[in-house]
Amino acid sequence: MPFTLNSRLTADTHLIGELPLSRLLLMDDARYPWLILVPRIAGARELIDLDGGDRAALLDEVAAVSRVLEAVLRPDKLNVAALGNVVAQLHLHVIARYAHDAAWPQPVWGRGERVAYAAADAAARVAEWRAALKEQLA
Amino acid sequence: MPFTLNSRLTADTHLIGELPLSRLLLMDDARYPWLILVPRIAGARELIDLDGGDRAALLDEVAAVSRVLEAVLRPDKLNVAALGNVVAQLHLHVIARYAHDAAWPQPVWGRGERVAYAAADAAARVAEWRAALKEQLA
Repeated sequence: MPFTLNSRLTADTHLIGELPLSRLLLMDDARYPWLILVPRIAGARELIDLDGGDRAALLDEVAAVSRVLEAVLRPDKLNVAALGNVVAQLHLHVIARYAHDAAWPQPVWGRGERVAYAAADAAARVAEWRAALKEQLA
Repeated sequence: MPFTLNSRLTADTHLIGELPLSRLLLMDDARYPWLILVPRIAGARELIDLDGGDRAALLDEVAAVSRVLEAVLRPDKLNVAALGNVVAQLHLHVIARYAHDAAWPQPVWGRGERVAYAAADAAARVAEWRAALKEQLA
């Protein structure tokens, strides 16, 4: 069974690029700097569905993305999570949080309505993340 | 600087025991089967504050705890997260979620009021987790 990105994730994100194991996406929500990693492993729902090597590789990619978010944005906190209550396909959220953002100190999920980027803004954000993460992207 | 558990975590949890790297806690909220791992590393706030070896060890402990939660409880989904907006000390949530639980499909944080266990129930849950995780606990 080949990997295909979940349709809800496809609809709600912009493609940044491919990491060695994961597809890297920008969440289409202008309220937060919010990246999503989806390991290209068909059928995976839980972190423990991955074998140890893939799980370690995924977490290394999360760490690499986190370091770049930290360096570029200087957030007050990073939020890293694998939830999947709505979209079961395994995906990891990495979100830069600020004490002045819309949901602080609560998590971002299910708080208010998503604010889609204007098309030009989405393209600009994607280009910025591609540049910032060019060493990680294939 | 020695490791000491954050006072808010101390107040809101029950001690299950010590994993090789992490202190394992039961969140004092009877609405959800909710475990918390706190690596005993003073000053850590973010996953990327850990060196690669400690981060891998922590994620292996999260995986081991997740497998036991999965085997014992057969949840509909596991939620795994490092947030830390309220308690900055690095801690990992591992929560067994059900499609019929109080917050589904939303995350559990900031939804309704925590329901503390009755003392006997907390002791019983702690004993159950100690037994289920005895191979992982020191």
